[in-house]
Amino acid sequence: MAVRKLRVHIESTRKKDRLFHVTRAHWDAACRRHPALARRLDVTLSWDGDALDAALPDVDVLIGVPAVRDNLKTRAPKLRWVHSPSAGVDGVLPLSWLPRGVVFTNNSGAHGVKAEQYMSMAYHLINTRMAAMIANQQRKRWESLFSPSIIGKTAVVIGLGDLGEAAARAAKKAGLKVIGVRRSAQKNCHADRVVSYKQLDRVLPQADFVAVAVPLTPETRGMIGKKQLDLLKPTAGVINIGRGPVVDNAALAAKLRRGQLGGAVLDVVDTEPLPANSPLWTTPNLILTPHVSCDDGEHYVDITLDLWFANLARFVTGKTLQHRINPKLGY
Amino acid sequence: MAVRKLRVHIESTRKKDRLFHVTRAHWDAACRRHPALARRLDVTLSWDGDALDAALPDVDVLIGVPAVRDNLKTRAPKLRWVHSPSAGVDGVLPLSWLPRGVVFTNNSGAHGVKAEQYMSMAYHLINTRMAAMIANQQRKRWESLFSPSIIGKTAVVIGLGDLGEAAARAAKKAGLKVIGVRRSAQKNCHADRVVSYKQLDRVLPQADFVAVAVPLTPETRGMIGKKQLDLLKPTAGVINIGRGPVVDNAALAAKLRRGQLGGAVLDVVDTEPLPANSPLWTTPNLILTPHVSCDDGEHYVDITLDLWFANLARFVTGKTLQHRINPKLGY
Repeated sequence: MAVRKLRVHIESTRKKDRLFHVTRAHWDAACRRHPALARRLDVTLSWDGDALDAALPDVDVLIGVPAVRDNLKTRAPKLRWVHSPSAGVDGVLPLSWLPRGVVFTNNSGAHGVKAEQYMSMAYHLINTRMAAMIANQQRKRWESLFSPSIIGKTAVVIGLGDLGEAAARAAKKAGLKVIGVRRSAQKNCHADRVVSYKQLDRVLPQADFVAVAVPLTPETRGMIGKKQLDLLKPTAGVINIGRGPVVDNAALAAKLRRGQLGGAVLDVVDTEPLPANSPLWTTPNLILTPHVSCDDGEHYVDITLDLWFANLARFVTGKTLQHRINPKLGY
Repeated sequence: MAVRKLRVHIESTRKKDRLFHVTRAHWDAACRRHPALARRLDVTLSWDGDALDAALPDVDVLIGVPAVRDNLKTRAPKLRWVHSPSAGVDGVLPLSWLPRGVVFTNNSGAHGVKAEQYMSMAYHLINTRMAAMIANQQRKRWESLFSPSIIGKTAVVIGLGDLGEAAARAAKKAGLKVIGVRRSAQKNCHADRVVSYKQLDRVLPQADFVAVAVPLTPETRGMIGKKQLDLLKPTAGVINIGRGPVVDNAALAAKLRRGQLGGAVLDVVDTEPLPANSPLWTTPNLILTPHVSCDDGEHYVDITLDLWFANLARFVTGKTLQHRINPKLGY
């Protein structure tokens, strides 16, 4: 008896870096890694919607969130699952476009390995005063900027999802004490202690490093504002690998310009690409990287498809999917 | 019966950073940590030789190598042990000034903790193309420079002393494969494989990172010359935390300017401080730090004195001292 195959459509956009483009070659390679599941699929791929509307009437599963999302219930009556190949879904909030009963998952789990590597570097960038040494190199100035050992210092890690756990793992490997901050205060094996968002202001004065690794939601926007920055030691450093608007970057830059903070490493900013007239570019003791901290530059799509196949195994057996977005919380 | 106390003289120089000055407060604190041994000592301290000649006739042990070293046999007839508070003793080679029978030890062991931290950062600086991102920040240019995971890449670590072991430990923690290169090819628990200096050229083509951590001796000067650099992959990075002249920095800079290497991180250079007219300051994909990678900015002297006391325990019981300099090898 012929079993009806699952209709999957994969939607990529050329607006994003090539790194994120799901090509037929990626797909075929993933199918070779997951042959039993792959046999049950009937797949189409499209770019910037060029074959999307032809596919939607039959589609059970979408990988990639279409740019035009209105009226999905009518356009894709069989749709049951939409998977975002990004971890952050703040760009498609609120989820009013998501038909009732359709599950929406994100790409949580794809970023932890690279995030840990970036954080391993970032703590030391701040501890060794690398920003000042970079500025000295530009001025051709040899100044013996020694630094203490990092061991025993304290990292306050905000968010303990895929990125936050990576930040915590990197901190523990570097010999830091880790205080995690999350919605629930639920314990985590990579943190010495976990407190809830409500207790954030009480732990910030202990931080030598603040690692921001929360998604952008109405709850987290502006979470690290002037008040929170003012609670930090003047030697503390701020690292943001989550989303720019979680931190008040104007307040952060003002404190750095006044020498009231040890340093900052920002991989994310409010507006990306950062406009050329932004004062952040030239803020002292601030190291900027262009939102590249957590994406594997070689295997991002391979990792993404492997995670999707793992969830597909749950889908076809009727299990609850992992990494479901809660429409109310927005992550 | 009164036992004659051991006469120890500690010599510091104001020419070096304050970090390295042994003060009376440091000494007293060390004595409180080692009270039983401290009771057996009669200690003087001097600065740039101001009390040196008064002390020398009675001195058994010198901490610090005097700037004027001629005729030590006559000036310090009882001298039995000279301890260098540096690890690198290339500045006082050859050891013709050392009276026969006097043991000369270095400060090996004082630098491993910080060196490991620096190397943990340095591998990632190269892997994430941080130098290019720094240059982009200076130009206010947002360019998505993604990078692959570092896991599974290969570090060739040259030298497996205090610094080299630290470089190897940092590499293993980052998920790298480690090929150690040392005089003897003797195995080391932090390296997957160890080869001898003679086999250096055979392992260099495998390197994603070359970590230079050897002392400067006649044997190591120029060890990484143009020929060795030409054996590297065009994506490989060179990190030097040992001594500048071990690497042919002109050849290294030429390769970086031609885009024939992935990057370099140099904490040491040929002439320190680096002259303002050195082309190294502006070499692309080169990150310079001012010889600060391995010295604890807070507790250098404390660590040094603790290591010295550990060796003193051997000295007073007639055991062979650790970290003896071999006059023939110069390290």
